[in-house]
Amino acid sequence: MNDLAKVDWLESVAWNKAGLIPAIAQEAGSGAVLMQAWMNREALKATVAEGFAVYYSRSRSRLWKKGESSGHLQKVVEVRLDCDNDAILLIVEQIGGIACHTGRAHCFYRKLEQGSWVEVEPVLKAPSDIYP
Amino acid sequence: MNDLAKVDWLESVAWNKAGLIPAIAQEAGSGAVLMQAWMNREALKATVAEGFAVYYSRSRSRLWKKGESSGHLQKVVEVRLDCDNDAILLIVEQIGGIACHTGRAHCFYRKLEQGSWVEVEPVLKAPSDIYP
Repeated sequence: MNDLAKVDWLESVAWNKAGLIPAIAQEAGSGAVLMQAWMNREALKATVAEGFAVYYSRSRSRLWKKGESSGHLQKVVEVRLDCDNDAILLIVEQIGGIACHTGRAHCFYRKLEQGSWVEVEPVLKAPSDIYP
Repeated sequence: MNDLAKVDWLESVAWNKAGLIPAIAQEAGSGAVLMQAWMNREALKATVAEGFAVYYSRSRSRLWKKGESSGHLQKVVEVRLDCDNDAILLIVEQIGGIACHTGRAHCFYRKLEQGSWVEVEPVLKAPSDIYP
């Protein structure tokens, strides 16, 4: 048993000054990095308790269950913590196959090519059809 | 051509108040999420110019070329930006197959299991052999 196993798992997390930690969602199976968002203590606790990704929305200053509007929930398969305790990796099943609010499979759809950000991933569903 | 392509690519990035952006490194081929670190403008510029990952060390307040001590450089294959312009994804070739300073393949080696963080990835090389 390692040292971290002896203490409450939420206490092991190195929250930043705002009480947040970056959280990365990776799709089980494909391995695609879907998105990066933020969690506070309540969000991480809720994620584990519910088995679905819950983030903290910095713009709305509230918990944000991913997919609460779109239906594109993220079912949690694994929760990982990094060596410095300051980043979370979620392995998830992406319901609907769409993680991005733009209707793309994931949020990292722009690639740097010769000094320009170029969109390289297709829109799978129009946002107007996702958020009626 | 999208809107972002028309302006300087570094200007498109939504740096936080400290002038930083979270950067995720993912291994080409395996798809493993290796680590999450931070970049400032100079770090991202250097990453693209050199073709190897350069981060900004918040603890040392300076640019940090990944692998500068260990030799475990990260050769950049792709640079991606997310939908909100506030997260970077690097697709890299991990030189030496070790991204973590603990000697593991990647930094997310602890998994939450029944309320404890459990180490689930082997140490491939002792840190004392990496940093003599």
